[in-house]
Amino acid sequence: MTQYVYRFGAGVSDSGRGDKSLLGGKGANLAEMATIGLPVPPGFTISTAMCALYYAQGETFPDSIREEVARGIAHIESATGKTFGNVADPLLVSVRSGARVSMPGMMDTVLNLGLNDETVVGLAAISGDPRFAWDSYRRFIQMYSDVVLGLDHGRFEEALEIAKEDKGVHLDTDLEASDWEKLTGAYKDLVEELWGKPFPQDAEDQLWGAIGAVFGSWNADRAKIYRRLNGIPGDWGTAVNVQAMVFGNMGESSATGVAFTRNPSTGERDYYGEYLINAQGEDVVAGIRTPQYLTRAAREAAGAKAASMEESMPEVYGELARVFDLLERHYRDMQDIEFTVERGKLFMLQTRSGKRTAAAALRIAVEMAQEGLIDEDEAVLRVDPSALDQLLHPTLDPDAERNVIAKGLPASPGAASGAAVFDAETAARRGGAGEKVILVRIETSPEDIAGMHAAQGILTARGGMTSHAAVVARGMGRPCVSGAGSISIDYRSRLMRIGDVEVREGDIITIEGSSGEVMLGEVATVQPALAGDFGTLMVWADRARRLRIRTNAETPADCRTAREFGAEGIGLCRTEHMFFDAERITNVRQMILAGDEAGRRAALAKLLPAQRGDFEQIFRIMAGLPVTIRLLDPPLHEFLPHSEEEFADVARAAGVEVETLRRRAAELHEVNPMLGHRGCRLGITYPEIYEMQARAIFEAALAVAADSDAPIPEIMVPLVGTRAELRIIRELIERTARAVFDEKGASVDYLVGTMIELPRAALMAGQIAEEAQFFSFGTNDLTQTTLGVSRDDAGRFLTQYVEMGIFARDPFVSIDEDGVGQLIGLAAERGRAVKPALKLGICGEHGGDPDSIAFCEKTGLDYVSASPYRVPIARLAAGQAALRHKAAAEGLGL
Amino acid sequence: MTQYVYRFGAGVSDSGRGDKSLLGGKGANLAEMATIGLPVPPGFTISTAMCALYYAQGETFPDSIREEVARGIAHIESATGKTFGNVADPLLVSVRSGARVSMPGMMDTVLNLGLNDETVVGLAAISGDPRFAWDSYRRFIQMYSDVVLGLDHGRFEEALEIAKEDKGVHLDTDLEASDWEKLTGAYKDLVEELWGKPFPQDAEDQLWGAIGAVFGSWNADRAKIYRRLNGIPGDWGTAVNVQAMVFGNMGESSATGVAFTRNPSTGERDYYGEYLINAQGEDVVAGIRTPQYLTRAAREAAGAKAASMEESMPEVYGELARVFDLLERHYRDMQDIEFTVERGKLFMLQTRSGKRTAAAALRIAVEMAQEGLIDEDEAVLRVDPSALDQLLHPTLDPDAERNVIAKGLPASPGAASGAAVFDAETAARRGGAGEKVILVRIETSPEDIAGMHAAQGILTARGGMTSHAAVVARGMGRPCVSGAGSISIDYRSRLMRIGDVEVREGDIITIEGSSGEVMLGEVATVQPALAGDFGTLMVWADRARRLRIRTNAETPADCRTAREFGAEGIGLCRTEHMFFDAERITNVRQMILAGDEAGRRAALAKLLPAQRGDFEQIFRIMAGLPVTIRLLDPPLHEFLPHSEEEFADVARAAGVEVETLRRRAAELHEVNPMLGHRGCRLGITYPEIYEMQARAIFEAALAVAADSDAPIPEIMVPLVGTRAELRIIRELIERTARAVFDEKGASVDYLVGTMIELPRAALMAGQIAEEAQFFSFGTNDLTQTTLGVSRDDAGRFLTQYVEMGIFARDPFVSIDEDGVGQLIGLAAERGRAVKPALKLGICGEHGGDPDSIAFCEKTGLDYVSASPYRVPIARLAAGQAALRHKAAAEGLGL
Repeated sequence: MTQYVYRFGAGVSDSGRGDKSLLGGKGANLAEMATIGLPVPPGFTISTAMCALYYAQGETFPDSIREEVARGIAHIESATGKTFGNVADPLLVSVRSGARVSMPGMMDTVLNLGLNDETVVGLAAISGDPRFAWDSYRRFIQMYSDVVLGLDHGRFEEALEIAKEDKGVHLDTDLEASDWEKLTGAYKDLVEELWGKPFPQDAEDQLWGAIGAVFGSWNADRAKIYRRLNGIPGDWGTAVNVQAMVFGNMGESSATGVAFTRNPSTGERDYYGEYLINAQGEDVVAGIRTPQYLTRAAREAAGAKAASMEESMPEVYGELARVFDLLERHYRDMQDIEFTVERGKLFMLQTRSGKRTAAAALRIAVEMAQEGLIDEDEAVLRVDPSALDQLLHPTLDPDAERNVIAKGLPASPGAASGAAVFDAETAARRGGAGEKVILVRIETSPEDIAGMHAAQGILTARGGMTSHAAVVARGMGRPCVSGAGSISIDYRSRLMRIGDVEVREGDIITIEGSSGEVMLGEVATVQPALAGDFGTLMVWADRARRLRIRTNAETPADCRTAREFGAEGIGLCRTEHMFFDAERITNVRQMILAGDEAGRRAALAKLLPAQRGDFEQIFRIMAGLPVTIRLLDPPLHEFLPHSEEEFADVARAAGVEVETLRRRAAELHEVNPMLGHRGCRLGITYPEIYEMQARAIFEAALAVAADSDAPIPEIMVPLVGTRAELRIIRELIERTARAVFDEKGASVDYLVGTMIELPRAALMAGQIAEEAQFFSFGTNDLTQTTLGVSRDDAGRFLTQYVEMGIFARDPFVSIDEDGVGQLIGLAAERGRAVKPALKLGICGEHGGDPDSIAFCEKTGLDYVSASPYRVPIARLAAGQAALRHKAAAEGLGL
Repeated sequence: MTQYVYRFGAGVSDSGRGDKSLLGGKGANLAEMATIGLPVPPGFTISTAMCALYYAQGETFPDSIREEVARGIAHIESATGKTFGNVADPLLVSVRSGARVSMPGMMDTVLNLGLNDETVVGLAAISGDPRFAWDSYRRFIQMYSDVVLGLDHGRFEEALEIAKEDKGVHLDTDLEASDWEKLTGAYKDLVEELWGKPFPQDAEDQLWGAIGAVFGSWNADRAKIYRRLNGIPGDWGTAVNVQAMVFGNMGESSATGVAFTRNPSTGERDYYGEYLINAQGEDVVAGIRTPQYLTRAAREAAGAKAASMEESMPEVYGELARVFDLLERHYRDMQDIEFTVERGKLFMLQTRSGKRTAAAALRIAVEMAQEGLIDEDEAVLRVDPSALDQLLHPTLDPDAERNVIAKGLPASPGAASGAAVFDAETAARRGGAGEKVILVRIETSPEDIAGMHAAQGILTARGGMTSHAAVVARGMGRPCVSGAGSISIDYRSRLMRIGDVEVREGDIITIEGSSGEVMLGEVATVQPALAGDFGTLMVWADRARRLRIRTNAETPADCRTAREFGAEGIGLCRTEHMFFDAERITNVRQMILAGDEAGRRAALAKLLPAQRGDFEQIFRIMAGLPVTIRLLDPPLHEFLPHSEEEFADVARAAGVEVETLRRRAAELHEVNPMLGHRGCRLGITYPEIYEMQARAIFEAALAVAADSDAPIPEIMVPLVGTRAELRIIRELIERTARAVFDEKGASVDYLVGTMIELPRAALMAGQIAEEAQFFSFGTNDLTQTTLGVSRDDAGRFLTQYVEMGIFARDPFVSIDEDGVGQLIGLAAERGRAVKPALKLGICGEHGGDPDSIAFCEKTGLDYVSASPYRVPIARLAAGQAALRHKAAAEGLGL
């Protein structure tokens, strides 16, 4: 029979070192502390497997568990010499939830369980402290009613207030045993009123109620939301920990406290914590009394008067400090610890790896490696790559006041303030003139790019984490809040409304792209400082990783940023971004709206020098490195004129009637542009466009090669679905290369390859590989087509899909390994079967996502390409992926 | 070494029975006729493999072929006793192209090759007929200049006219030897003027010129277009046939003719043909002289005077009739024959399976089986299923005059005339009042459905073969011409322009959906008559087939048509089509625009009785058969109001402000609706919609089961991409079923399954099958997502893609087996691995396409579902697929 209950403490540890997936984090750590001999109050853990069974059986318990729990209670009874429900010397226990990872949104603790109208009298006698006994009982009723029975806790607080008023006192400490006893009576009446039944007096009933409530809390809304936000699977379940009570409130020789073995904010190597004499743990957290410092140094630094624990309880403090060191050495990580001192005796209630800021994580990892506590690889594994984002963008001053008026998706990190403007043109004009502006749009489109560049940040009312606004903003390193649905924008009146709040053009707002918050007025920000530890960790990560890291960039500024952040080439240069420049757009539009090839060629001839100039700049910045240039991809109508004036400009330039242009523009409208006339389909129907681009690339490469390191252009053909398409475009590129090389009497090396971004391309990868020197997985579009989800429109259901667990995570943020991943694996396999040296990379948004990078490592890709500000994250994630992949392979004896 | 030249005739046949893929159709038949001892002029065939090599080597010949051709010429020389290029007794040959299937768009024949200034004199002497010799020479120069040298043939005809004018005669026959000799001189001058070189005198040069021209003709524009229209792969190549000339123009005992062994128009069992005495084959075709009938009966029936061949050449006719019978017995099919009589001796120049009308094909197949010439299975295989389309729709009277003003795609067969109207509302109004109208739109959308129904036919300026207009029109059996790009529609002025032609609302036009023609005025049509042979063949096809045939239908009329045509159930009932009814659309709109669930439920309650009524009607018509009902699929914004009046209607019905509705409507706009909030995504975010639909289905099924055969509802969930989606919707359906069955105290059997129409669904089919009782492959959307091609927008490049050979056929017409087919195969395999009894079907447009049906047979699906008018086609195609699949399996010894 499966074992569901694991005992610990008093020399027993059923589970040995403790498995977190089985016992939860708290249970595993209690078991482990017991195993290494630390003073842990005896108890037992009901495993997460019981949680799964509980839900599978329609929220009921199997009979067998009752016997196991009874055995657990017996263990505590024998260790403490007390008896559960015994009137003379009652055993009191705590009941706590404990998932595999810490979930602050979960059920609170229930303390003092086992007290009832009779055992409270025994406790008073045994402890010699009736006030303590009655206080404990009323606390228990209050907690149990709130946490287990779900009764309105306001009513209980009210009753306490009344009790103090009746007595004419202000502090809990001013109440005496009889007052507490009286309040207990009031509480019991309240329970009967609100719950319709008397407060449960049977200790067994109390226990099972608490256990059921812990399991039930796993599927409470707040737990679900926490899981969704933190990517925790819904089937993990929680464990339940039942443990003998120890009391920090048994007088002046008792105390309770929380501590970190290092500073969780800065990472500094100092004991860091707080304690309270004669208090239960909840008092430390609740803020009713001001906790005191743990160490004398901390107290002095803060200029506080109340004695530190080091001063008031030197002996216990000494023991505690030894435990800190022991735990840190044992777990080889900074610990977050809860302890209680009961009448001079120290008990450890909890230890776990402490949460820390990104800066602290970096410093602790690097310093622990330097101290020899962990090795460098382990240090690399210790820092959450996603958290580095915090260090790479300005953030809001945590002390500044915020007037939050709306909340959207945290689309691109960083904070920014500026005048709200509602169109790209105004953003470009005012931003260009040096003013700080926030561009606010219902959604953005490629024509807004200049305005987005000129803005400090972008706010949209519609669109998800991978909407146009989000993707471009991340690429540019601009903060962005997208899909703030409560905002209603009125372009005509140049204002937005959120409920009653009206923000007009020019009003200052602040956005915070890591939280999704939108605030009225300017909120102060703090600039990031990249500490030296950052560089050290990057070197270690680079040493560990196998994947190369490239960047998605096309502007000289982005290219420079990326190279400074360690990019080893460009994995995606989107040539169309260069088409929106004000000086060029008229020529681009003339090209698109031309009625024939001659008209297109005339316009393209005007674009050629500009494109060549762009490539030359990029090649110089990336000298000696590979630069993957994607030929024109988006549907042509994205470049169309909108205003009368723009139409007139193009008509003048092209020498045709405005009416003709307008008709042609209408013809270019598409129902589903994502699946329309774009990518290599443009290159096949209008070969002169790709011919111009290829010529610009080769001419630029030759110019740069003449006086510095030759770039290695990797020309990438988008949206290929068949071998024939790639063959036709490859031949066009090769013809153009020969022509340019002949004209200039010089040549450069170059590659021709393709995006794999359609399911058909993945399926036919074997054939397509015959024509390709590299594949780059365009996972944005591959996700859209494989899942049949338009990322521009997904906002309406994707959030709900993730909440409901239909998708474990947003598939545009982290690769859908089951579906899209299957196609990538298959394409890699089929492509390499035909051409073993085929270079494989990924250039979708996923290239900067740590989980997706781990998938790329597993799949054997050669590189990932991330937006410039995610390059350090990708480097660290790639290092971790390589280490984990190696460990897994070794684990399998490979 | 590979053999490229195959000799035939005079007792030799290098290739035995002749392989069409190697020798082409003509070459294979010549070889075969030679093998069975028929009098074939000796010759040889250069194989299609050489054509491929010719193109692979940059349009040059390998040296080895020259030796092989020389050996071929030697064979003809030895058989005829004449020598190629010999002045005294020159061998003359014909050179003809010959692809695997007949391609009328290919190169013409070159006759009399081998003549030059010297051999013409020898030919005159040997034949004793200088007029014949010089006429032959000038014909040769004329043909060679046109076909091989590509010179302007008008100039040659002009020269002939001048020669006749100079002589003062009107007919070629009035010219004498010296006139032809003089004209020959003029022709040679013309060649030198136009070509810049003298006419080639060397017989070898002439021959290689002709061979090169035949191979070159394979990639001429007209051949490419023909291939595209007929689905012939570009890599098949053509063969070249070189054959000794025989002359039907050597006096009154010579003749030439063409014949069919049965009537190719009606299928009647009669020799059918024409001949001309003292003529070359081209004269029969060219229409310069009126050909005479072959049989006396035909002559008499036509009331013609000129003697039939049966009367004028009874002996040769008798021999010919024996050859006809022999050939028909040998090939077991109706033959299309060319013959020549040279001085009383019969030569067979060609035989091939004769092209025939659909009606003739049916009759011939059925009669031949009844005659015992072929068996019933063979008869089933003999009729091209696609050709049945001709028999199922009214067609234009072939004798009526047509004023064609535009041409589009043949989107839905049949012909129709009516008043042009430019919006659906007018179509519904005027059509509803009994007027015949043709609905003309730039493109159609779901809201046009009522207007499409009321119209006789649909014409669109945009959209491909599977655009909305095309798909819906085929489903309704309405003729449709789509994507007529030359039409410019002006909705405001209610007119369309094609060049200078203006068609105003109310002007009568005619469209022909099988040719894509658009005509001014009314053109008479003929109604189809389904002959008894049709029914006989269907019975045989049904006996042969394994696949079940269902239909895509939702109106009672369509359901009845389909059942009459033999549908065995409904494979796709699109519930959304029922939402456009004028009485319901306001409720539908109220539901969509409701701000909350309560609002939606209120509107749905009003829709429930209507939906239940729809299903009841369908269940009654389809009593006892399975009816697959797809829950609401399209994005909600397709149902939105457009006009002020419509908004006002909905606002009144819902009791909200128009402005609120307008805002909500704007929110529903999608960038890529195909990949948006639709299908089961709607059912998950708004479960009340599917709940209403499921309730309507179960209530209707119970009502019908109460008094007739119970229907078997198969409830189909669209756009599933994950197992979880299907599980959630399945549970919702089952809950609803339990509720309805409890209320009514009765139950019916039903199935719950899913469309497989996303690549991810195919990849995850194993998991999804756990929740499904059937899969139906939605190949329209699966093609769109796998290829990343929106069928609404594909028009801009798909035609060119097919012309360039990037796709062998339009993937929306015939399943892309390489890509989409791979996913279907994989899904079928993974689904059945989990659930061996999983029912598999297909319900895309491909369900009515014979090639796709063959694929479904191979893949082991259980049924295909086609639009009502394609059900007979699907039955026949399924019969053929089963027979071919069985034959292939037996061929592999399976």
